[in-house]
Amino acid sequence: MTDAIDLIRAKRDGHVLADADIRWLIDAYTRGLVADEQMSAMTMAIFFNGLAPAELRTWTDAMIGTGKRLDLSSVPAPTVDKHSTGGVGDKVSLILAPLVASCGAAVPQLSGRGLGHTGGTVDKLEAIPGWRAGLSAREFIDLLSTVRCVICAAGEELAPADRKLYALRDVTGTVESIPLIASSIMSKKIAEGTQALVLDVKVGSGAFMREIGAARELARTMVRLGTESGVRTTALLTAMDSPLGRAVGNAVEVRESIEVLSGAGPADLIEVTLELAREMLKLAGVAADPAAALADGRAMASWRAMIAGQGGDPDAPLPVAAHSRVVVAPASGWLRRLDALAVGTAAWRLGAGRARKEDPVSAGAGVICLVKPGERVQEGQPLLELLADEPGRFGRAMEALADWIEIGPQAPVIGPVVIERVT
Amino acid sequence: MTDAIDLIRAKRDGHVLADADIRWLIDAYTRGLVADEQMSAMTMAIFFNGLAPAELRTWTDAMIGTGKRLDLSSVPAPTVDKHSTGGVGDKVSLILAPLVASCGAAVPQLSGRGLGHTGGTVDKLEAIPGWRAGLSAREFIDLLSTVRCVICAAGEELAPADRKLYALRDVTGTVESIPLIASSIMSKKIAEGTQALVLDVKVGSGAFMREIGAARELARTMVRLGTESGVRTTALLTAMDSPLGRAVGNAVEVRESIEVLSGAGPADLIEVTLELAREMLKLAGVAADPAAALADGRAMASWRAMIAGQGGDPDAPLPVAAHSRVVVAPASGWLRRLDALAVGTAAWRLGAGRARKEDPVSAGAGVICLVKPGERVQEGQPLLELLADEPGRFGRAMEALADWIEIGPQAPVIGPVVIERVT
Repeated sequence: MTDAIDLIRAKRDGHVLADADIRWLIDAYTRGLVADEQMSAMTMAIFFNGLAPAELRTWTDAMIGTGKRLDLSSVPAPTVDKHSTGGVGDKVSLILAPLVASCGAAVPQLSGRGLGHTGGTVDKLEAIPGWRAGLSAREFIDLLSTVRCVICAAGEELAPADRKLYALRDVTGTVESIPLIASSIMSKKIAEGTQALVLDVKVGSGAFMREIGAARELARTMVRLGTESGVRTTALLTAMDSPLGRAVGNAVEVRESIEVLSGAGPADLIEVTLELAREMLKLAGVAADPAAALADGRAMASWRAMIAGQGGDPDAPLPVAAHSRVVVAPASGWLRRLDALAVGTAAWRLGAGRARKEDPVSAGAGVICLVKPGERVQEGQPLLELLADEPGRFGRAMEALADWIEIGPQAPVIGPVVIERVT
Repeated sequence: MTDAIDLIRAKRDGHVLADADIRWLIDAYTRGLVADEQMSAMTMAIFFNGLAPAELRTWTDAMIGTGKRLDLSSVPAPTVDKHSTGGVGDKVSLILAPLVASCGAAVPQLSGRGLGHTGGTVDKLEAIPGWRAGLSAREFIDLLSTVRCVICAAGEELAPADRKLYALRDVTGTVESIPLIASSIMSKKIAEGTQALVLDVKVGSGAFMREIGAARELARTMVRLGTESGVRTTALLTAMDSPLGRAVGNAVEVRESIEVLSGAGPADLIEVTLELAREMLKLAGVAADPAAALADGRAMASWRAMIAGQGGDPDAPLPVAAHSRVVVAPASGWLRRLDALAVGTAAWRLGAGRARKEDPVSAGAGVICLVKPGERVQEGQPLLELLADEPGRFGRAMEALADWIEIGPQAPVIGPVVIERVT
C-alpha cells in the first residue's frame, strides 16, 4: 500500500521515487485522496532535492494521464508549436503562428492567459472584435487542417493535475523549482499532441529566469523531457532585459504584430520571430524561408485566415485607451537601460494585465516605448506613452517606474536578442 | 502586511525570519488564517534550512503564547522536571518524580500518552485502580505544594499551536527536524512553569534518535533553548538499544517501578534513574543523596502519597493479562543483543500501546525480558514472556520479533547506560 508520507520522506531524504509511486501520487492528488498539505511538503522537498530525469518523465506523463491527450494525426501537415516562458512585450506567437503556417507547417497553439507583469497571448488576441479563444477539440483540429494555425485557450481537460498543482505551488512558495516548472509547461504541450516544439526561454529582468545559468538548466530539462516523451524539442534562450518591440499591452501588441506581418516593425521583435520560425520549420522538416513569407504577404494572409477562422474581423479597428500620459527623459544622453520588469508592471497596473485569474483586462491599456536602449535621448523628450481607460491608474503605474531607466554619457553595449540554442 | 508565501520563500532561500514574522505566522496558523499547505511547506523548508537559535527561541515562545503558561510561584519548593524523548521500558518518570520529591524538590510533570512502540507515562499510571490523569490547574498546584510530585496529562491549554503543528508534521513527513522537535518539546515544558529541567535524550535502535550525533545536536538545541528561555536545563544522553529494565508495558512497568522504589530492581534502570535524580537535584539546588532516599523508603512514601493524591490505591492489585506465551532461546551462547525496537513493537502489538490517539490500551499486556544482554543463555531457555488479553495478538507480536536477538560465542561489550552529559 503506497503511502503519501513514505513518499514525502523518501524524496526529502534524497531517494529516487519509483514510477508506480509517482503515478499513484499524481493521480491520488488530482482526485483529492492525497491532501494539499502533503503535496506542498512533497513539492518543497522537490524544490530542495530535485527530480532525476526518469522521475521527471514519469511525473510529467502522470500529469498528462490525469486528462485527455489531443490526437492531431488527421492534420495534413507536420505539426510544430512554440512556447515562451513569458516576457514583457512578447507578442511573438501572434506573428509566428501564421508565419510558420504560411511556410507549410501546422501550428497547434494552446495558450494561457496572463498573470502578473507578463501578458497572455489569448488576452492580446481578445482585443480583436469578435475573436474567440474557446474552441472545441473538433473546431481546433478542423482549423488546424484548413488554416494550419490556431491559437486558443487551453481547455480544462489538458493535464488537470497541473492546474491543481500550480495553484498549490503558487501559495506555498514552490513555483521556483526547475523540474516542477518543466513538468507544468511540458505536460500541457505534450498533451496538446504537437510533433515538435520550440521553447523560447526568456532570460533577464523581465523574465521568470533572471540568470542565464538557471534559464539554460530549465531549457535543457525541458528539451530532454520533450525529446524523451516523443516530441522533437529544441530551445532558444532570448534576452528579456528590456521589452520586446515597442508595444506592451493587448491591442497595442496586436497592432505591432500586424506591423511586422506587413513587413515593418522593430528589429529585435523581427529577429526573435524569424529565429524561432527557422527553428520550428527545421524541426518540422519544412524547407522554407520565413523572411520571404513575411516580405511577400503570405504570413499576413495566414494571419487574416486565422483571425477570421476564430470569428474575428481582421479589418475591424482595434480598441484604443481613453486616456494617455507621456513620460519624458529626465536627462540627456544614451538610453542605456529600459527595464522590462518596470515597464511590464506599469502596463499591468494600467489595466493590461490581471492580478487574479478572474480579473478582466483592458484591451486598450498598455505602454508604448518611444525609445529603445542604445538610442540617444534629450532631456524632456518623450520616452514612454502610458495608455489607460481610467486616469486613476496613472499614479500607480508611475510608481512602478521608480528605477526603470539609465541614461548615461556612453553608448551601451547591447547584447544579441537570441543568446543561444539548446538542443 | 506579512504574507505567508513571502515567509515560506524566505526560509526556503535560507534567510533568517524576523521575530514579528514568526510570531504572526504561528498565531495566524493556530487561528486557521494560514493554511495547512502553507505551514507544511514552511516546515519542510525548515527541515532543510533549519532555524537559527534566535529564530527557534521566538518560534517556541510564539507557540507558548498561543496558550496558557502555568504559574508555579506559590509552590514552596524549587521546581524541577524531567523529559524523556521516549524509549522502550522507560518507566523512569514513575520512580524519579517521587524520588526527587522525597529529597526536597517539587516535580511538576505534565506528560503525554504513548503512540507507537514507546509507551506513555500516563498510560502506565492508569493501570493503577482509581488513579486519574486529568487534574485542574488548581489541583495540580495544590498537590505539587503538598505531595511535591504530580504526573498528569498535559491539558489542551498548553501551547495549542504544538498540537496542531505536530499533527500536521506527522502526516507531511517533517517530524524529523531537530528545531521542530526541540520547539515541540520545550514549548510544553516551558509553559508548564518549571524552574529547571533535565532532558533524557535516548539514543539507539529503540529511540527516536538512532545516531549519537543527532541525539547530541537535539540535546544541545533543547538545552540552549531552555536556558535562553529562563529554565535551567541540562541533558543526559542515555542508551536505548535494549529495553530499560525488564518490563515493557503498563501494569508490568508500574510493578517494576515499585520494585525499584522498594530498593531492588534492574541495575540499568536504577543507574539511569539515580543519574537523572542527581542532575535534577543539582539544578534545583537541593543537596541530597537520592540513593539513600531509595534505600530508606522515603521515595516509596512519596510514591504512595502521589498515587493516593490522584485518586489511586497504592495497595490495590494491578491488572494481569489473561494470556501469556514464552519465547525461548534458539541457540546457546551469550545474549549479545536484545533489540529495543523489536521488543517495543511486540509489546505495542500485544495491546500495551496504541496506533492512533483514540485507541484504548490494555493495562495488563506487555513483555517481560527474562534475560538481558551480557547474560549466558541455553538453547530452549525462556527469554521473553509475552502478555496479552486476547490470544489472537501473539501472532503479530511474534512477527515483530523476526530479527530481535543475537546469540554468539563471545560475551558482548555492554556500553554505559548514561552516555554523556550535555549542558
